[in-house]
Amino acid sequence: GSLRGRCGLAMAKSKFEYVRDFEADDTCLPNCWIVVRLDGRNFHRFSEQHDFKKPNDDRALQLMTKCAQTVMQELEDIAIAYGQSDEYSFVFKKKSRWFKRRASKFMTHVVSQFASSYVFYWKDYFKDQQLLYPPGFDGRIVLYPSNQNLKDYLSWRQADCHINNLYNTVFWMLVQRSGLTPVQAQERLQGTFAGDKNEILFSEFNINYNNEPLMYRKGTVLIWQKVNEIITKKLKLPKEAEEKEVEVTRTKTKVVPLHCDIIGDQFWEEYPEILADDS
Amino acid sequence: GSLRGRCGLAMAKSKFEYVRDFEADDTCLPNCWIVVRLDGRNFHRFSEQHDFKKPNDDRALQLMTKCAQTVMQELEDIAIAYGQSDEYSFVFKKKSRWFKRRASKFMTHVVSQFASSYVFYWKDYFKDQQLLYPPGFDGRIVLYPSNQNLKDYLSWRQADCHINNLYNTVFWMLVQRSGLTPVQAQERLQGTFAGDKNEILFSEFNINYNNEPLMYRKGTVLIWQKVNEIITKKLKLPKEAEEKEVEVTRTKTKVVPLHCDIIGDQFWEEYPEILADDS
Amino acid sequence: GSLRGRCGLAMAKSKFEYVRDFEADDTCLPNCWIVVRLDGRNFHRFSEQHDFKKPNDDRALQLMTKCAQTVMQELEDIAIAYGQSDEYSFVFKKKSRWFKRRASKFMTHVVSQFASSYVFYWKDYFKDQQLLYPPGFDGRIVLYPSNQNLKDYLSWRQADCHINNLYNTVFWMLVQRSGLTPVQAQERLQGTFAGDKNEILFSEFNINYNNEPLMYRKGTVLIWQKVNEIITKKLKLPKEAEEKEVEVTRTKTKVVPLHCDIIGDQFWEEYPEILADDS
Amino acid sequence: GSLRGRCGLAMAKSKFEYVRDFEADDTCLPNCWIVVRLDGRNFHRFSEQHDFKKPNDDRALQLMTKCAQTVMQELEDIAIAYGQSDEYSFVFKKKSRWFKRRASKFMTHVVSQFASSYVFYWKDYFKDQQLLYPPGFDGRIVLYPSNQNLKDYLSWRQADCHINNLYNTVFWMLVQRSGLTPVQAQERLQGTFAGDKNEILFSEFNINYNNEPLMYRKGTVLIWQKVNEIITKKLKLPKEAEEKEVEVTRTKTKVVPLHCDIIGDQFWEEYPEILADDS
Repeated sequence: GSLRGRCGLAMAKSKFEYVRDFEADDTCLPNCWIVVRLDGRNFHRFSEQHDFKKPNDDRALQLMTKCAQTVMQELEDIAIAYGQSDEYSFVFKKKSRWFKRRASKFMTHVVSQFASSYVFYWKDYFKDQQLLYPPGFDGRIVLYPSNQNLKDYLSWRQADCHINNLYNTVFWMLVQRSGLTPVQAQERLQGTFAGDKNEILFSEFNINYNNEPLMYRKGTVLIWQKVNEIITKKLKLPKEAEEKEVEVTRTKTKVVPLHCDIIGDQFWEEYPEILADDS
Repeated sequence: GSLRGRCGLAMAKSKFEYVRDFEADDTCLPNCWIVVRLDGRNFHRFSEQHDFKKPNDDRALQLMTKCAQTVMQELEDIAIAYGQSDEYSFVFKKKSRWFKRRASKFMTHVVSQFASSYVFYWKDYFKDQQLLYPPGFDGRIVLYPSNQNLKDYLSWRQADCHINNLYNTVFWMLVQRSGLTPVQAQERLQGTFAGDKNEILFSEFNINYNNEPLMYRKGTVLIWQKVNEIITKKLKLPKEAEEKEVEVTRTKTKVVPLHCDIIGDQFWEEYPEILADDS
Repeated sequence: GSLRGRCGLAMAKSKFEYVRDFEADDTCLPNCWIVVRLDGRNFHRFSEQHDFKKPNDDRALQLMTKCAQTVMQELEDIAIAYGQSDEYSFVFKKKSRWFKRRASKFMTHVVSQFASSYVFYWKDYFKDQQLLYPPGFDGRIVLYPSNQNLKDYLSWRQADCHINNLYNTVFWMLVQRSGLTPVQAQERLQGTFAGDKNEILFSEFNINYNNEPLMYRKGTVLIWQKVNEIITKKLKLPKEAEEKEVEVTRTKTKVVPLHCDIIGDQFWEEYPEILADDS
Repeated sequence: GSLRGRCGLAMAKSKFEYVRDFEADDTCLPNCWIVVRLDGRNFHRFSEQHDFKKPNDDRALQLMTKCAQTVMQELEDIAIAYGQSDEYSFVFKKKSRWFKRRASKFMTHVVSQFASSYVFYWKDYFKDQQLLYPPGFDGRIVLYPSNQNLKDYLSWRQADCHINNLYNTVFWMLVQRSGLTPVQAQERLQGTFAGDKNEILFSEFNINYNNEPLMYRKGTVLIWQKVNEIITKKLKLPKEAEEKEVEVTRTKTKVVPLHCDIIGDQFWEEYPEILADDS
C-alpha cells in the first residue's frame, strides 16, 4: 500500500498537506452588516409537485419561517431576518466575530441548517402531504457598510414582496375565478400599474387588496424579543411538609415573527436595538 | 403605507435597487479544479446523541454516501467525490461553467442538498433510531490548478482517513475491551507510530488491521460509471397478436461507490476519464 | 508565420481572447472610504546612499509631499492625504465611481504617478545631489466603512509618526552629539517611555521636543482648499480705445499642506467637508 | 495635545491599531503563472505632446524596454516579459513565493519601478526632447493555471501587436504620404482585412510589410540568458614581479531582448527553461 511503514502514515500525510495553502481567505470586511440570502432551488417545480396553494400557501410560508427561526437560534449573531415566498435573508451583526467573519462559514451554515430543518419540520406543517424529494437552496452573501444601506436592502426585499404578491393575487384570481389561461392572465396584466391591479381586484373580484393577510403582503420579519414565560414549578418550601405548585415568571429571549412594514421609519424607531452600535 | 400610489410600487423598489451593486463577484478562476468540502457541524455531540457505533457506524457512513450520491446526481459537473467520517469532498470539473463558476453557488448548493438529503434519507439507514434535531454542515471551496494538485488533495484526505481510523480503532479497543478510560487510552497512544498501533491491535486484541473493512480504512470514492441494466419490456411485435416480454439492455451512467486506494497511481490509470482534459 | 492569410490575424487573435476571462473582478465595496498607502521600497538604504539628513531631511519630506500633491491633482476623488517619513496615504471618497472602484486601478495609478513624480521633481529639492537610481514603492489598499474607522486609520498613522519621530530625534542626538554607537543608542532607549525620551532630550540636549518643527512631529496633511488668486488681465473695455490692466480675483481649488493634529476632533470640525456625505 | 503623558503615545497608537484588520488578504492562488500587465495612462496625448514618431518611435519603444529590463532585474522571479506600444506584461514564476504572492505587492512594485525608471532613463533615449510632466501607468494582475493558458495569453498580446501595427503602418502612410486626413484614412481602412492592408502598402507605397522592422511587427520579448563576458583583470602572479593583464571569462545572467514570434512552438522549444516546472 501507499502508506506503509513506521511513521510512514504521518510522513505521507505531511507530504500532501501543502494543498491547504490553496484555500483563499474570505474574511468579510469588519464593521459591515453581513447579509446571507437564500432561495429555494427550482421551487416553481417543487411547489407544483407538492400542491402548494396559489398564490400563497400558509403551510409553506410557515415552514420557511420555522426553518429561519431555527437558523437564528442555532447560529450566532443574527440580528434580524426577513422572508417572503421561497427566500429568506439573515442579517449578521456589524461587530460579529463568528468564525472570524469567514464568508463561506456564514453561507454554508445558514443554508445547510435551513435545508435540514425544512425536511425535519416538513410533516409538522404539511401533515399528510408527503415530501417527495430533498429540496435544494442557494445562498449568497452581501456586505452593507451603513445602517441606511441595510435598511434599503430590507426595503428592497419587502418592495419586491409587495410587487410580486399583488401581481400573483390578481393573476391567480384571473386564472382560478375568471377561467383565463395563464398566458391570457399574463397578457391581461402586461403593462398595468399597481393601481390598475388594485382596481381589477376590487371591481372584478370584490377584493380589497389592503384586507389581504399581512403575511402575504408584508412577508415575515424575525426579531429577538424578551418574552415573559409563566411556568409552574413544584417547590418544597422550608416550613411546609408538602410540595407546592408555584407560578414563576422567567424572561427569555425568543425569535418572534412580525408581519409589518419595514420600509418606513416606524419599525426602526420601535426596535432601535436592532441597529444599535453594540449589536 | 410606504408604497402607495400609482406606479409607486415599482418606483419605490427601484429606489432601493442600488443595494444589488454591493454583491461582490466571486467567480472561480477558470481551468482549475473546484473542490467543495463539507463537514458535519458539532458531529461529535451529534454522534453521541444518536448512539453512533464507535469507531465506525455503518449506518452513518452509508447515509453520508447516499447524500453525496444525491448531490452528484442533482448538481452539475461533479467528476469525483471522496468521503470519510463526517466529511465529503466534491470535485467539479476544470471546465465547468455551472452558474458561471460562482463560488457561493457551488458551496451553497452542495451543502443544502446534502443537508436536506441527510434528514430525508435518515430513516432508510437508522430505522427506529429517531433523528432528534436537524443537523448543520459547513463547507469551504478550494481551487487546484493542476491534476497533481488535485490528486494530492484527495491523497491528503485519504491519508487523514487512514491515520484517524487506525487511531480510533485502537482507542476504542482499549476503551471497549480493555476497560481503559478515554483519558487513559489517549495517554497510552500518545507518541506512538502507526507500527506501534498495529502491534497493539495484533498482540492485545488479535486484530490484523489490514483485515478491517476497506470502507473504514480507505473511505469512500464516488465516481460515474456506465452500467448495463437489463430491464423487461412488454412489446407488441408487428406480426404477432399478443404482447411479449422482452429483455432490453440499457446503458446508464451511475454514481458508484468504491473503497480503494487513491493515493497510488493505479486508481488514476484505471479511470483516466476522471482527469481527462475534456472532463 | 503563425498569423498569415486573409482574415487570419483577427481570427488568430480571437482564438486567444478567452484568456481575458481569467482576470478577476476586484471592485471595492461601495459606500466605503478607499485608502491607498504607499511606502518607499528599501528606503533605509536609499536614504543612506543619498545622504539624507537624520532624523529628518527637509528636502526628502518636501519631495514626498510634492509627489502626493501631484497624485491628488492628476487622479480623481482623493479627499485627503496624509504622509510621514517615506509613506503616504491617499483617501478616496466614499462615493467615488472612478474606474468603477477597481482596486488595481486605484493602487497602480497612485504608486506609478507618485514614483514618476519622485524622479521628475527630485532635482527641484535635491539640487546638486544626484539621484543614483530609480526608486521603487509598494502600495496596498484598505476599505473603511465608517467615518470613525477612517479617522482612526489616520490617527493610527499620525500616532506612528509621533512615536517614530520622538524615538529618532533622541536616537540621533545620542549618536550625533553624545557620540554613542547606533547599538549603544538603541540599548539606551530600550524600554523607555515617551516621558523618558522627552526628559533625555531636555536634560541632556536642552531640547524641548514640543518646539521641534510641526512637520516632523505631525507629518503632512493634504486637503483641498479654495484659494483666491489675484491675477492681472489686459482688458479692452467697450467704450475705451485702449487696453487696460485690471486685477481679477479667481477662486481656485488647490491642494494645501498642513502640519496639524488630526487625532483630536478640532481638525474634523474645522474641515467638515472632508467627511461630508456627498464628498 | 492628543498624545500627551507617560506611556500615552504607545497606548494611543494601540487604540487605533484595530484598523489593520480591515486590510484584506489578496494572496494569489499557488501553482499559477502571475501576469502583471501595465499600460501608459493617456499615452495618446503623451505621445503627441512629446512628438513621438508615428506609427512607431524607436526612442519610446527602447525606453519602455529599458524600464522593463530594470523591473526584471530589481524584482524577483520574473521569468519572461513581453512589450508592445505602451504596454508591458511581466510573468512571475508559478512557484514564486515573493512577498507571499500578495497581488498588491506584485502590481505596485512593477508599476512604480517602471514609472520611476521611465523618468530616470528618459534623457538617455530622448536626448534634447524634454520630458514635460511625470507620466502615469495602470496595472492589472491575472493568473494562468496552465502553461497553455500562459502561452495563449502571450500569443494574444502578440496578435494584438500584429493587428495594431499593420493598421497603424497603413494609416500613417495614408496620412503622411497620401495626405488623407485621419478621418479619411480611418474610413479608407474600415472593413479591410490584413490582406487588403498588405496590398495597399505594396501597391500604393511600395512597402513590403514583412520587411518592416521586427521590433514593430513582433514587439519585444525579454528573457534571461546566460552571457559570457570577457573582462580584463590585472593580476599579480606568484612567481612574477609585475602585475599582468589577464583576460577572464565570466558567465552572467542577463535580461536579453528578442523580437521573435512567440505564437508558434519554435520559441518555446528553443527556450524550454522558461516554462520548466522548477522555474
